[in-house]
Amino acid sequence: MSSAPQPSTRSLRIALAQINPTVGDIDGNAALASEWIGRARGAGADLVLLPELVITGYPPEDLLLKRHFVDAALAAVAEVAKGVDGIVALLGAPDRDPALHNALHVLSAGAVAAVYHKVLLPNYGVFDERRYFEPGRGAELLDLGGVRVGPTVCEDIWLPGPPTSVAALAGAELILNASASPYHWGKGGEREEIVAARARENGVAVALCNAVGGQDELVFDGHSVVVDAEGRTLARGSQFEEQLIVCDLELAAGERPGAEPDRAPTRARVELGDHPPRDPAEPPLAPALSNAEEVYRALTLGLRDYVGKNGFGDVVLGLSGGIDSALVALLAADAVGPERVRCVIMPSPHSSSETQGDAAVIAGNLGCETIELGIAPIMAAFDEALADRFAGTESGIAEENLQARIRGTLVMALSNKFGWLPLTTGNKSEMAVGYATLYGDMAGGFAVIKDVPKTLAYDLVRFRNELAGRELVPASVIERPPTAELRPDQRDSDSLPPYEVLDAALEEYVERDGGVETLVSSGIEEDVARRVIALVDRAEYKRRQAPPGVKITPKAFGRDRRLPITNRFGR
Amino acid sequence: MSSAPQPSTRSLRIALAQINPTVGDIDGNAALASEWIGRARGAGADLVLLPELVITGYPPEDLLLKRHFVDAALAAVAEVAKGVDGIVALLGAPDRDPALHNALHVLSAGAVAAVYHKVLLPNYGVFDERRYFEPGRGAELLDLGGVRVGPTVCEDIWLPGPPTSVAALAGAELILNASASPYHWGKGGEREEIVAARARENGVAVALCNAVGGQDELVFDGHSVVVDAEGRTLARGSQFEEQLIVCDLELAAGERPGAEPDRAPTRARVELGDHPPRDPAEPPLAPALSNAEEVYRALTLGLRDYVGKNGFGDVVLGLSGGIDSALVALLAADAVGPERVRCVIMPSPHSSSETQGDAAVIAGNLGCETIELGIAPIMAAFDEALADRFAGTESGIAEENLQARIRGTLVMALSNKFGWLPLTTGNKSEMAVGYATLYGDMAGGFAVIKDVPKTLAYDLVRFRNELAGRELVPASVIERPPTAELRPDQRDSDSLPPYEVLDAALEEYVERDGGVETLVSSGIEEDVARRVIALVDRAEYKRRQAPPGVKITPKAFGRDRRLPITNRFGR
Repeated sequence: MSSAPQPSTRSLRIALAQINPTVGDIDGNAALASEWIGRARGAGADLVLLPELVITGYPPEDLLLKRHFVDAALAAVAEVAKGVDGIVALLGAPDRDPALHNALHVLSAGAVAAVYHKVLLPNYGVFDERRYFEPGRGAELLDLGGVRVGPTVCEDIWLPGPPTSVAALAGAELILNASASPYHWGKGGEREEIVAARARENGVAVALCNAVGGQDELVFDGHSVVVDAEGRTLARGSQFEEQLIVCDLELAAGERPGAEPDRAPTRARVELGDHPPRDPAEPPLAPALSNAEEVYRALTLGLRDYVGKNGFGDVVLGLSGGIDSALVALLAADAVGPERVRCVIMPSPHSSSETQGDAAVIAGNLGCETIELGIAPIMAAFDEALADRFAGTESGIAEENLQARIRGTLVMALSNKFGWLPLTTGNKSEMAVGYATLYGDMAGGFAVIKDVPKTLAYDLVRFRNELAGRELVPASVIERPPTAELRPDQRDSDSLPPYEVLDAALEEYVERDGGVETLVSSGIEEDVARRVIALVDRAEYKRRQAPPGVKITPKAFGRDRRLPITNRFGR
Repeated sequence: MSSAPQPSTRSLRIALAQINPTVGDIDGNAALASEWIGRARGAGADLVLLPELVITGYPPEDLLLKRHFVDAALAAVAEVAKGVDGIVALLGAPDRDPALHNALHVLSAGAVAAVYHKVLLPNYGVFDERRYFEPGRGAELLDLGGVRVGPTVCEDIWLPGPPTSVAALAGAELILNASASPYHWGKGGEREEIVAARARENGVAVALCNAVGGQDELVFDGHSVVVDAEGRTLARGSQFEEQLIVCDLELAAGERPGAEPDRAPTRARVELGDHPPRDPAEPPLAPALSNAEEVYRALTLGLRDYVGKNGFGDVVLGLSGGIDSALVALLAADAVGPERVRCVIMPSPHSSSETQGDAAVIAGNLGCETIELGIAPIMAAFDEALADRFAGTESGIAEENLQARIRGTLVMALSNKFGWLPLTTGNKSEMAVGYATLYGDMAGGFAVIKDVPKTLAYDLVRFRNELAGRELVPASVIERPPTAELRPDQRDSDSLPPYEVLDAALEEYVERDGGVETLVSSGIEEDVARRVIALVDRAEYKRRQAPPGVKITPKAFGRDRRLPITNRFGR
C-alpha cells in the first residue's frame, strides 16, 4: 500500500522577549537584548523576536538625525550579533543604505544574516516616522529551517493588504511583527484583534512582540501575542511587565503549493539546530484587566520609568485633600514606594480643616512623609509688595493664582534643595479648559494624570481602595464637591459645567475633532459647547508649558494633538 | 521680401500679494485675499499670486484634522472666487479629493477654474506636511492667454527636477510659486538663489510669493521675487512687510517648439482681458538688510503679531539692567509702542545699584512706564517658611531660584490683574544649557529672544543704539560682565564657558547635530564639549516648559528640534 506524499511540517519554538529599553542607552539596550536572547536560547527557542527599535529605544526622535547616533546603533547590532549562536534573533534597530530605515535585523551564527525595512511609516498621532525614515520596498521572506517567515515592523500589519498579504502570497507560514506600540486604554485588545484579523485574512500564524515601559509621555504595554492561522490566540503576554513568551508552532516547511515566491525575495536561509527532546512549551495567556486597573498600571509604569530612567530618587507633591492629588499620591507610592514620596501640605486661610485632615490621613495611610508649610505669611508679603499697584482693584484671579504660585514655589524649593522630582496633580479635564495655574499647581517635572479625565480619576481611586480592601483615600475625598479652595466656599462648578458634561464635551471636541455642530448633536447645549471650545482653545498656551505626563486616551494633549496657540478658528 | 515666422510673445503683468493672514481666521483671511486681489486688478495685473494656504494661515497644524475646518476653508475659496473678475488669482488653500492636499486654487471669472496639488511635502525641521496631506500627482499647466504657466507650492521648487523640470519640459514659460516659507537668518537670500537656480536650469521665468507675518514660533519674511529665465532678479519685495509687487514679463505664447505637452496636463485655459494702455510697471528691488537689522525686524514682527493676533493690549517684562532684558525692552517698544510696555524693576539684596540704575535709564530712554517692587520681604517670608526644613543646609540653587520665582510670580500677578502679556528675557545660549529658572525668569507668555545666541544679543542692542543715534541702552550694560545677580559677586562665567566658546559649541551640537568628536575637531576642548552636551541634554525638560519664541536660526529649540527628555545617549 502506498501513501500520497504528505506536506512536511516542522515544529518551531518561538520566543517573544517583551523588554523595556531606554531611549539613547544603546550600550544598555544591547546588553539587555543579549541577556534576553540568551534566556530564549535557554528555553529551547529556535527563534526570538524583540521589539521595534529596541537598540535605540522608541521613539528616539531627533537623535536619529545625529550621524554618530546611528553609527553607534549599527555597531551595537553587530556586537549583539556576535553573541548569537544556536538561535535566530530578530531585533529592531535603524539601518542605513544610505537612506535611514526603521529595520528588523536578523541575527544568526554570529552575524547579521538579513535586514528588513519597515514599509508603512506612521506619521499621525504621536508618530513622526516620515521625518526620519524612508519606507522599505516591500515584503521579504526568511527561510528558517525550511519554514517561510515574513518579518514586519509594527504599522506594517495594522492595515489589510501589503506588505502582510504579499508575504503570505509568496509563501510565508508565519508573520513576525516587532512593535513599539504605545498604550491607550483598550489598545492591547485592539492590537490583538488586528493581529487575529491579519492571520485569518492571510491564513498565516502571526506573532507580535511589543515593547514595555515608559518613555516621556508614552507607555508601551507589552501584551505580546501569538495567534494561529485561524486567528486563535495561542499566547498572550502580560501588560506592563517584561516577560519571555515561549510558544511552539507546527508549521508547513518547504514550498507551499500555490505559493508565488517571486512576489517577495527570500533574504536569508538559516538552518535551525537540532534540539534535544524538549517538553512542550506552556505559553502564558494573561487575563484581561479592567479598564481602571489597566489605566492605573499604565500610569504607575509611566511614572516609575520617568523617575528611574531620569535618575531621580524621591518624588514630592502638594497634597490638598482633593481627589486629584490623592490619586497622584497613590500612584507615586505604588510606583516608587511610599518611603520615597514626600507630601507637602500647604494650607492657606481658604483651606478647610476637612481637606487638610483628609490630606494628612491619606499620607498616613500610605506611609508617606508629610511636610506642612503654611502660606499665609508669604501671601501677606506679596499682598504688601503689590498693595500700591493693586489698590482699588477687586480681589480675583490674580490673588487666587498667587496662592497657587506660592505653593508651586515652595514645592520647587524643596525639589531644588533635596533633588526630589516634583509631581503635578492636574487632570485632563482641568488641563483642557485651563482650570489650573501656570507656575502654580502646574509647576513640576511630571504630570502623572494629565491625560486622566476627572470622572475617571474617581474610578481609579475607587479601584485602588478596593484593591487595598480599605479606604486608603477616605470616602469624604471622593464625595466632596470638587473645589480649588482658592477663595471662600469656591466650587469648580461655579465656573465650569458639571464634570460629566464637561468630559463628554471634551471627548467630542478633543478626541474626535468635533465642532459646535457635532457637540450639539451629541447632546451638549450650544452655549456650553461654545464655552468649552473657547476655553480649550484659550488654554493652549498653558498646556504648552505643562510638564509631560502619561498618555492613556486615544488622543492626549502634547505630541498627539498639535494645535497652534495663535488660532482664531474657534468652532 | 518675406520674413521667417516669429514666435508670438505676450506681455503679462503679474502681481505678487505678500500678505499677512492669521491662522484659523478663515473669514478674515478671505476678506484680506479679496482686498489684495482687488488692488492687483487696480494695478492692471493680468494675474495675482497669493501665498500658500493663505485662506487658513500657515501652519494650521491639527486644525486640518477637523472636517468642518476644511469645509469652511473650501467655502471661503468659493466665496472669494465669486468676486474675481478681470484678473486671474492663484491662492493657497487646502483641497479634498477626498484625500487632503496642500493646493493652489486658480480663480477666474467668478469660479475655481483649476486646482493644483503640491507634490513635495516637507516633513523635516518645523514641517509636518505628511501628517496632513497626500502629495499631488505631478506637474500641471495652465494656459493663460496662450502663455503656459506652471503652478507650484513652496517646497515644489526647492529641489532641481520634478515637478518644476517637468512643467518646463511640457512647455511652461513661467513657474508660479506660492510659499509660506519660514524665516531664519539669511533665508531670504537663500530662497532667491534657489529661485534663480530653478529659472536657469529650466529656462523659465519664476515668480515666488511668500507670506508675511508671525505665527507662534515662526516668522514669514516676505521677500517675494520675480526672476527671468536667465535667473536675473526683476523684482524683490521688502522683508517683513505686506506689499503688492507688480512686474511686467514678455513671455512666449503658444506652443513652444520642442515642448512635450504630454508630460503635464493643462488644467485650465483662461482668456486674459484686454487692458487699456498702461505705463510699464516699476517693480521694487528691496535692498538687502544687514544680519542684525534683519534679525531685529524678524523679532519685532514675531512679537507684534503674537501680541496682536492673540488680542493682547500691553506687555510687561522684568528689567534687570542686563543685556537680555534691555534687548527685549527695545524690541517690545518697537513692536507695540513704548506706551504699551511696562517694565518691572525688582531689586533684591544682591542687585547692584549700577544695574538698577541702568534699568531705570533704559525704561526712561524708551519712554516706558517702570514699576518698582522690592522682593526682600517676600524672600524673608519664604526663608521663614522653609527655615525648619532647610536648617543645616548650605545656601545654593534653591535659594537663588527662590528669588527668580518671586520675581516671576510678581510679573504674573501684574499680568493676571491687568491683562498684560508677560515677556521672558532668556536667550538661546541660556535656554540651551538651562541657565534660567523654570517658573522664575522663564515665566511668561512669549520668549522673544529665546532663539538669539547671547553673542548676537549684543549685536542687536548695538544695532538699535546706532539706529537711534544715541545710547538707548547705556554702554555700561553692554560692557558689564554678564551676571544673574542671584548671589553676591556672581558672574555667568563662574558656571559657564565664555559665551564665545559656548555659542560655538552650541552651533556645532544643536544646529549641526554634532557630537563630542565633531565639537573637538571644531576646536572645542573635550571637557568643555562633554560638559556642554550634558548641560544641553539635561535642560530638555526646562525647554519643554518654556513659552514660545521667534525662530531666527536654522535650528531653533521647539518644533524644529525634537529631542526626548528621557535620553541617555549623551555624546
